[in-house]
Amino acid sequence: MEYASFLRQHIEQIVTLSDDEFELVLSYFKPKEVAKKEYLIKAGQKVTSEFLVIEGLLKTFLFDEKGKEHIIQFAMENWWISDYPAYAQQNSGEMCVQALENCIVLELSLKDKIQLCETLPKMYRFYGQKSFGGYVSLQKRVLSMMKNSSKEKYELLLNQYPQLFQRASKTMIAHYLGVSRETLSRLHKRYFLYLE
Amino acid sequence: MEYASFLRQHIEQIVTLSDDEFELVLSYFKPKEVAKKEYLIKAGQKVTSEFLVIEGLLKTFLFDEKGKEHIIQFAMENWWISDYPAYAQQNSGEMCVQALENCIVLELSLKDKIQLCETLPKMYRFYGQKSFGGYVSLQKRVLSMMKNSSKEKYELLLNQYPQLFQRASKTMIAHYLGVSRETLSRLHKRYFLYLE
Repeated sequence: MEYASFLRQHIEQIVTLSDDEFELVLSYFKPKEVAKKEYLIKAGQKVTSEFLVIEGLLKTFLFDEKGKEHIIQFAMENWWISDYPAYAQQNSGEMCVQALENCIVLELSLKDKIQLCETLPKMYRFYGQKSFGGYVSLQKRVLSMMKNSSKEKYELLLNQYPQLFQRASKTMIAHYLGVSRETLSRLHKRYFLYLE
Repeated sequence: MEYASFLRQHIEQIVTLSDDEFELVLSYFKPKEVAKKEYLIKAGQKVTSEFLVIEGLLKTFLFDEKGKEHIIQFAMENWWISDYPAYAQQNSGEMCVQALENCIVLELSLKDKIQLCETLPKMYRFYGQKSFGGYVSLQKRVLSMMKNSSKEKYELLLNQYPQLFQRASKTMIAHYLGVSRETLSRLHKRYFLYLE
């Protein structure tokens, strides 16, 4: 199965697994196909799982009271996605997770994750490192939101994730950066004029 | 020693330790006194450690090109603080960590943290859970920065950390929330008029 070797590579970037250990790990994950525009999580629904992206692109977002969309997270191949504040509480949340392309994801519930780690403690190391990496990335994002101009925010994202600019719409990138669609278009023209 | 029992309680919120295990853990931490206004980390200096706050209040901050201060993190008792983007790279960073009160902290280098976890793997679980908690808090902060009004941001912080409003100056809370000093004063008057 294609996703099995993907998962093994993903985990072995951090911890090495024997074949038996990997079989055990694999048994906890549920593969899932999600069609473009389909929802993996809907606001108000209890969130018990997170998802590793094998193929495709998704977003976690919400609409505020004024009907404005805010994208808290994108996820493509090798990224994890959920409504994390809700998942951490195993409760219903205010955000949605939606596929922006046809996707294949691997689902892991928090309950299974805990059981897997208890059975195979080296997985604590894997999740610890992943969470710490995520924490540091978010600190950088908060810092960028606080001090950077729209142009600097745009450039930072473009340098970090050039792929995203080929796969997500300009509107979505604007909703992720927290800049207006007009500002985004202006910046986009500056960088992509000769490519389109 | 006072800080020893503090550290044990702090860790045992997540993992239980035998006396021998705790002695091992303790041997990796270096206690440090930091006087009010003193710097624990200066911008441009190599960052190899993080710090657990036993007593006191600190901030991680930087000045942007216009000389405006941005506070990325406060830390009081039971919180960890560093310039995390720099610490993750074991490199020099752009942020400073400064004491806002006379503080006692416990220092742990990344090198020692890795060695401690290798020797006592249950510490991976401790750090994993801490990092995951930090990740979820930062997602909530990003969401609040994106969608909340100044008033909502203020109320959220006040509900989460009422202590902070007694211990940090209004200017600092403004620099953490990313709102102007004037807005902060206006909000502050609304909530604290009868208390001052």
